[in-house]
Amino acid sequence: MAKELTSRAENYSEWYNELVVKADLAEHSAVRGCMVIKPHGYGIWEKMQRVLDDMFKETGHQNAYFPLFIPKSYLSKEAAHIEGFAKECAVVTHYRLKNAEDGSGLIVDPDAKLEEELIIRPTSETIIWNTYRGWIQSYRDLPLLINQWANVVRWEMRTRLFLRTAEFLWQEGHTAHATQEEAVEETLKMLDVYADFAENYMALPVIKGVKTASERFAGALDTYSIEALMQDGKALQAGTSHFLGQNFAKAFDVKFATKEGTQEYVWATSWGVSTRLMGALVMCHSDDDGLIIPPRLAPIQVVIVPIYKGEEQLAEITARVEPILKALKAKGISAKYDNADTKKPGWKFAEYELKGIPVRMAIGPRDLENGTAEVARRDTKEKKVKPLEGIEDSIAILLEDIQSNMFKKAKDFMESRKTPVDSYEEFKKVLDEKGGFVLAHWDGTAETEQKIKEETKATIRNIPIGNPLEDGVCVYSGKPSNQRVLFARAY
Amino acid sequence: MAKELTSRAENYSEWYNELVVKADLAEHSAVRGCMVIKPHGYGIWEKMQRVLDDMFKETGHQNAYFPLFIPKSYLSKEAAHIEGFAKECAVVTHYRLKNAEDGSGLIVDPDAKLEEELIIRPTSETIIWNTYRGWIQSYRDLPLLINQWANVVRWEMRTRLFLRTAEFLWQEGHTAHATQEEAVEETLKMLDVYADFAENYMALPVIKGVKTASERFAGALDTYSIEALMQDGKALQAGTSHFLGQNFAKAFDVKFATKEGTQEYVWATSWGVSTRLMGALVMCHSDDDGLIIPPRLAPIQVVIVPIYKGEEQLAEITARVEPILKALKAKGISAKYDNADTKKPGWKFAEYELKGIPVRMAIGPRDLENGTAEVARRDTKEKKVKPLEGIEDSIAILLEDIQSNMFKKAKDFMESRKTPVDSYEEFKKVLDEKGGFVLAHWDGTAETEQKIKEETKATIRNIPIGNPLEDGVCVYSGKPSNQRVLFARAY
Repeated sequence: MAKELTSRAENYSEWYNELVVKADLAEHSAVRGCMVIKPHGYGIWEKMQRVLDDMFKETGHQNAYFPLFIPKSYLSKEAAHIEGFAKECAVVTHYRLKNAEDGSGLIVDPDAKLEEELIIRPTSETIIWNTYRGWIQSYRDLPLLINQWANVVRWEMRTRLFLRTAEFLWQEGHTAHATQEEAVEETLKMLDVYADFAENYMALPVIKGVKTASERFAGALDTYSIEALMQDGKALQAGTSHFLGQNFAKAFDVKFATKEGTQEYVWATSWGVSTRLMGALVMCHSDDDGLIIPPRLAPIQVVIVPIYKGEEQLAEITARVEPILKALKAKGISAKYDNADTKKPGWKFAEYELKGIPVRMAIGPRDLENGTAEVARRDTKEKKVKPLEGIEDSIAILLEDIQSNMFKKAKDFMESRKTPVDSYEEFKKVLDEKGGFVLAHWDGTAETEQKIKEETKATIRNIPIGNPLEDGVCVYSGKPSNQRVLFARAY
Repeated sequence: MAKELTSRAENYSEWYNELVVKADLAEHSAVRGCMVIKPHGYGIWEKMQRVLDDMFKETGHQNAYFPLFIPKSYLSKEAAHIEGFAKECAVVTHYRLKNAEDGSGLIVDPDAKLEEELIIRPTSETIIWNTYRGWIQSYRDLPLLINQWANVVRWEMRTRLFLRTAEFLWQEGHTAHATQEEAVEETLKMLDVYADFAENYMALPVIKGVKTASERFAGALDTYSIEALMQDGKALQAGTSHFLGQNFAKAFDVKFATKEGTQEYVWATSWGVSTRLMGALVMCHSDDDGLIIPPRLAPIQVVIVPIYKGEEQLAEITARVEPILKALKAKGISAKYDNADTKKPGWKFAEYELKGIPVRMAIGPRDLENGTAEVARRDTKEKKVKPLEGIEDSIAILLEDIQSNMFKKAKDFMESRKTPVDSYEEFKKVLDEKGGFVLAHWDGTAETEQKIKEETKATIRNIPIGNPLEDGVCVYSGKPSNQRVLFARAY
């Protein structure tokens, strides 16, 4: 294992890039902007999927699957939507290859040109609402609560593993409702689901709020987000939930018969989180020695490393470890016993530290004599000698403690980086010297928002839900304002 | 609900097409050859995925994710492989749209042409083996046992829901081994996993065997398949497992250092099943009234329908049903209580019959008095009155009975449609009059295979594993043969 990570202090960005690759989470593929998600990374993503999927089903949603391809004309039907996505579309124009007549190799067959080009979905509102037209006739068909797990493509020019890739994996919920009120309620409900997931599984504290008009999803009337803070003081948007009004219903002519017999357009929401969450997970928690995975999302929660000389000692240790593995499994704890003889214990320790396994147990001959094991937790690196008798119980408690400790640490960090400022000078100073969220009065105009962005690279992350009203003046324009909004430099 | 299915006897093909749509499994999308998998269909697919995924992990495999796009040049690196897939490739040539200068709308931006065209993966051997080159250096890195759940695209001209679609969902396993022996063992192990899944979860009896050279996967040295029989006497290939030899290792230069220090090419396998299994499930088991889903793959295993007049009766029934729902859940049985007041019981009965829910319980006021319920099983349509006390136990037993009964019925059908023939006349007669598998001697040549296919539309499905050796003469050429092979007309 070639460890030697760049430290966060030295170069945070480089630290992230190296860590993702060295911890076997993902790597760049030979295809521009597309990543390969490696087994360790995919294992964490699978855990995320399972938890989220259960949460979606718990709140009444079902999964379905819609085509990868979107006819070009569909994208154009919702004006704001196409404006937002036209510039980053992968376009399929042909459906066959053939051998070149001059023997130069394989070429695209010009006779196999599509009549209408197909776009690889950058998001599926258009193809889904075109389908919903056939599914919705009456109020009895509503609400329609559907989610899709899928790959999507947005042709980003500058890509970074997990944070911004041309192809990424995500889920996209698309719901249809009889009333505006119900659709808004759904939008906020799913925002809560995301916040619950981020905080209680990813150990990632977030701020829920509504986006400004200029940061809205292309085609939405309102976009809500959860915003998290990374260790370098930059914000990261971890999930969004959109109230789409009747925009897509009108674009695709989806009406329903009300109880009263009138015809009305359907109300819509959409909401999504993606493999970008993997980037947030890494950047929020990890350290200069590698990943730190919150126990609830760790594919392997405990690794047991035997310290031995010779076959006989190994056999003795293995005999004692086997019932422990069973007991851990019975408690729903995933454990791995690494008895590979091709690698030394020290190498294994560093490897599992790099990969962020929450708990490491080491057992040697002296431990067997004493009936103990050395238990190390990844988050604080604290080591303790614990009795083997009933160790599954102490490990279960330890895992919960790690989970809550990780959240607390991240929460304390975020709270310490929420700074109210009252002047533009202070605004810029805090951004440069401390980073994090800056709470400042804003005059509510897109012009000011844009100016601030150009001058400081800070954007309004969101206007927090339940934000206290407070009279003040915009730090930029001096015009009146009735609340502080959440600024930050962001990923 | 518009039921009125065409009967199987009337038009089997039409029956299938209607059933898939009317039972809410899938429908055609607006995009040529692509389907929308509806929640009920996707629910069954999710069950399949979960079971298969557990089986893959149980046999030591991990999941990962590779790019949707394959550079055109990669496909060409393995000669047989490109031959097999070039004619059905969706090709991405551009990465941006723009507004036409003449105001005619959105067009593909000619300035955004890719230097090298990208193919939407029809299968991922090439991109994966290109990646494995970086992952495999020494024997210590082997075996590499990886699976991917993904969408793939093959531009089929004639499509049918689930059976043949331009885009479909599947899993593809791609493993790398140090020796030929180990790779062959893996190929056969995964064939066994597929057969186990088909028979014990889908209740679908299959014949495991090896494909003839002309039916091999493009790039494989050997292709094994599981073949099932549909109710119309046509065979359906339900899964394949390929021994790829060193073809892809050579094409992508993947070598490893052996224990002895020499450099050798890696041995490979790949194996996959797809949403085609959904088609097999429907066509093997269902009847003129709708789907019949084997209990182990049913998203809802039991539906409970209250028969009532007025709110008060409904409340009484609901109060009695609630503990039953809990008891079923505790036993791991998924149950739905359909107390919707917008639909009549008769409508509900027909609907759940159409959708193939294995067990239906009906409870009315008289049942409450007697402490009973009417329990109907979908497979045989048998109805019985059963005591409510401990009904969760009798339902658990009933579900297992349905599962094994469905398999037995399908198995009996298949066995009755395996016909040994000794002349070409008989061969054609059996195909036309009885259908099913025809066991005939074949001279082992591709020419004969091709002639028989042209003349009868029957193909060699496979040469069954453990096939008894038996001297005979080819039904077509009269040349000597040492075993009968499995012919059938197929999907």
